[in-house]
Amino acid sequence: MIGKHVQALLTETEDTFLIPAANVATLLYNHPLEHAMLILTNVGYSKIPVLDSEDHLVGLISLADIMQEISGLTGFDMQRLEVLTVADVMEVKVPKMTEKDDLETLLRRLVNEPFLPYVDQNNVFLGIFTRKAILKSVNHMVHEIESRYWLVEKEEERKAQ
Amino acid sequence: MIGKHVQALLTETEDTFLIPAANVATLLYNHPLEHAMLILTNVGYSKIPVLDSEDHLVGLISLADIMQEISGLTGFDMQRLEVLTVADVMEVKVPKMTEKDDLETLLRRLVNEPFLPYVDQNNVFLGIFTRKAILKSVNHMVHEIESRYWLVEKEEERKAQ
Repeated sequence: MIGKHVQALLTETEDTFLIPAANVATLLYNHPLEHAMLILTNVGYSKIPVLDSEDHLVGLISLADIMQEISGLTGFDMQRLEVLTVADVMEVKVPKMTEKDDLETLLRRLVNEPFLPYVDQNNVFLGIFTRKAILKSVNHMVHEIESRYWLVEKEEERKAQ
Repeated sequence: MIGKHVQALLTETEDTFLIPAANVATLLYNHPLEHAMLILTNVGYSKIPVLDSEDHLVGLISLADIMQEISGLTGFDMQRLEVLTVADVMEVKVPKMTEKDDLETLLRRLVNEPFLPYVDQNNVFLGIFTRKAILKSVNHMVHEIESRYWLVEKEEERKAQ
């Protein structure tokens, strides 16, 4: 469990770590791969969320996913970019966060995922939680905690009583 | 400054956060781009270090760097992969860590970089520090700190004296 003082310090600089959907580059599942390739080449993120036309989260896609799909024995077959869509290569097993998940869960899952999509109860995409945002708050917390609090060992205190 | 108790908890589960060079996928600066493309498609990391033949760190390269280089008005020109080398597209401004840098510096720099290469005084590549490794230790720290210590507000203590 994360203690209340630590939790307070972690959430002090921003109460939510969410980057809202409006600020996140996404792709539609039925976009042609050629378009996906252009977006991923220029967006500055290696992997982005894939939505359907009603903003439901349906997958994640990266440049590597696309290149793997079109790579063959004799190199990369760029012709296939015109006939395939995002849905053909996206990863569909997407780890995600909902409003039921707490800060503890978020911190644990971000060990294995560079970012986590956040969805409502109908799986509508609301934004992402990133390692970057969390690390900003971690920096704040580790700098502040010992300047604000004395850390008194619980063992020693018990001994002293 | 990071306090001594926090620092001790952060470094308790592993004294170094380094992933040694032997376990990191790298490319040589004179590799053809076609080879770089294959490695980056299959390695599972979106960006990897570039070395010279004596293991000096000379750059970083990602799939997006390559695709940007070969993209033109009429799509991607795969022919260019055969004539270009890694050195032609790699990023040469590489944020990195040396033995002079402490944990505080590492934590701060990882806010903006997914990983940081670590080099010796001759710029020989020794490994990388990742957000993943740091977040593992952060999880340990935030769980342990309030079960091991009472956090006593310094203000209140001063008032009580």
